Amino acid sequence: MTDYPFTPLVASLPSTVPFVGPEAQERQRGAPFVARIGANENVFGPSKKAIAAMQAAAGETWMYGDPENHDLKAALAAKHDVAPENIVVGEGIDCLFGYINRMFVEDGVTVATSLGAYPTFNFHVAGFGGRLVTTPYVNDCEDPGALLDLARKENARLIYIANPDNPMATWWDGATIQQMIDDVPDGALLCLDEAYGEFAPDGSLPPFDVSNPKVIRFRTFSKAYGMAGARIGYAVGEASLIKAFDKIRNHFGVNRIAQIGALASLNDPDHIPDVTGRVAAARERITEIAAASDLAALPSATNFVAIDCGKDGDFARKVLAGLISQGIFVRMPGVAPQDRCIRVSAGRPADLDAFAAALPKALNKAME
Amino acid sequence: MTDYPFTPLVASLPSTVPFVGPEAQERQRGAPFVARIGANENVFGPSKKAIAAMQAAAGETWMYGDPENHDLKAALAAKHDVAPENIVVGEGIDCLFGYINRMFVEDGVTVATSLGAYPTFNFHVAGFGGRLVTTPYVNDCEDPGALLDLARKENARLIYIANPDNPMATWWDGATIQQMIDDVPDGALLCLDEAYGEFAPDGSLPPFDVSNPKVIRFRTFSKAYGMAGARIGYAVGEASLIKAFDKIRNHFGVNRIAQIGALASLNDPDHIPDVTGRVAAARERITEIAAASDLAALPSATNFVAIDCGKDGDFARKVLAGLISQGIFVRMPGVAPQDRCIRVSAGRPADLDAFAAALPKALNKAME
Repeated sequence: MTDYPFTPLVASLPSTVPFVGPEAQERQRGAPFVARIGANENVFGPSKKAIAAMQAAAGETWMYGDPENHDLKAALAAKHDVAPENIVVGEGIDCLFGYINRMFVEDGVTVATSLGAYPTFNFHVAGFGGRLVTTPYVNDCEDPGALLDLARKENARLIYIANPDNPMATWWDGATIQQMIDDVPDGALLCLDEAYGEFAPDGSLPPFDVSNPKVIRFRTFSKAYGMAGARIGYAVGEASLIKAFDKIRNHFGVNRIAQIGALASLNDPDHIPDVTGRVAAARERITEIAAASDLAALPSATNFVAIDCGKDGDFARKVLAGLISQGIFVRMPGVAPQDRCIRVSAGRPADLDAFAAALPKALNKAME
Repeated sequence: MTDYPFTPLVASLPSTVPFVGPEAQERQRGAPFVARIGANENVFGPSKKAIAAMQAAAGETWMYGDPENHDLKAALAAKHDVAPENIVVGEGIDCLFGYINRMFVEDGVTVATSLGAYPTFNFHVAGFGGRLVTTPYVNDCEDPGALLDLARKENARLIYIANPDNPMATWWDGATIQQMIDDVPDGALLCLDEAYGEFAPDGSLPPFDVSNPKVIRFRTFSKAYGMAGARIGYAVGEASLIKAFDKIRNHFGVNRIAQIGALASLNDPDHIPDVTGRVAAARERITEIAAASDLAALPSATNFVAIDCGKDGDFARKVLAGLISQGIFVRMPGVAPQDRCIRVSAGRPADLDAFAAALPKALNKAME
């Protein structure tokens, strides 16, 4: 290692990877996965209209995308009944998490989250020198009241919660989340991650109130819209907060084909009901597969299901390894007690057939 | 403006836009441009093989891209005779410029560049609190010796130079650039932007030496490869420097279709010669169009030509406005004395026909 004059902060950071991709695991095992149901990707794919629009746009990718994301913001504004000035589009939610941390976090700033919540948010907190404080999950749910108490006690500037939650798939009703928004302490900003919002029961997402400077809400085309590889997401918030992203964002950062595909997705009203219907069926099937092995699946408001393997994290890690070795790509929570579970994404029938065949063997092997 | 608890640095930044996109100008003028020859996009488009590969990949965009960019890095490593560990792939050069600044720049750190060089690099210097020092262009060329002298005098940690240069299209031979690399002072890192490298005469790009920790070189698929909208570029450097990008980069940030298109481009050896041939013809045509109005075009090693409008920046700005009002999207340098020029990208024959028709009128109007 050559001695580069990195900033002290960057010098102190590890060369972390928040998640190892399935391709790396395939290279390691020397064979492709049979079922790719580990990253909560939407195997049912993008809207056919979006696919056609992206294919038509491929030849025009010599043009930069519109740095103002004008047409997409206009469509999103109409959808959510807010103004375009309340929306920032970015190259995926992860990128927007990086930006929001960069805007608010530096050495000495505290961020509150749940112990075991989305690691990439934490990656960015650390990446800008923040101090992360956590409160445990309760009954596999993030705990809004405890998060607010922690934020008050620790003087947190950002508070992170996902509704529905990843990795547990649990959720709160809209009234509980609205109460949390209402109770955000002065000087703090709630980062409400609704990446899985389209899968949640009606009423789980409170109405937007873009006059409120205490909350910013994150949405994505990666999950229900089936465009994870396109890297396009957005955030909705108070206009001057949204405007501040222009201070630091990579203005030409969003892929043009992604812009076009996202816009086409919004113009296909049948796609999301079709996807959520298939996802609901897949969740039921995963629950049945778990039950057939005497395991309990947690209720889910997302496109994945956490299956309680019935013992501790070491056991669940063995089950996971047994599934991976049979070509089933799944993941699991990283922190106890949630790590007694494995996390299985909604798959096509063939994906879940493969999972159903592999799970009993993985369980048997883990019990050896 | 609500009083958000931004970091002091972010609070101090303007909500800048380094470049206004052509779409915003089209919305403002209420009509599309006739010729889009202002952003140095490659109007000749991506490789047909890349287009076909991207179209085939559109339906699979439900999958995240490989966060390790393994296959693309392997192909680039073979092309440049370096190891994959010497390459970082990012969501466009602009994004990589953001990362390199984040790694090295904070309050009190100095960065040396040329007065009027690429503004987006400067945007990121400011965005991480750096102090920018500049040395003038000499005869419309960046001045390697003066840049090094400035870096020594001001104790610069990063030094930026583009070869060939943007916005002037001038260039240095490989020996001059190699000498500059050899003379980089201790404690400094040279950021060598070779975005337009494929258009330069043979011998303009020195061979890679990835054992040298004093230079990192940036390349892109946005220009010769015709994939600006795909947002994919890369940097080549010493392995431990490249590894450090993992500390902060958005690991899943690169669009999957872009990865696939870039890889397909590399597997089409005929595309770049075809593009550079068309670009060379377009440069000649632009030079002829300028000469027909008694204007001198600067020699160019890029896919654009700087035309000296023969007076000062105010005059050139009027010429530019006259072109824009006739539906010709062009840009110009932002700083004197380079701002006596307008900057015209290599266009298709029809684009340049429109430019040829519009230029005399724009000049006449500017002289009123």
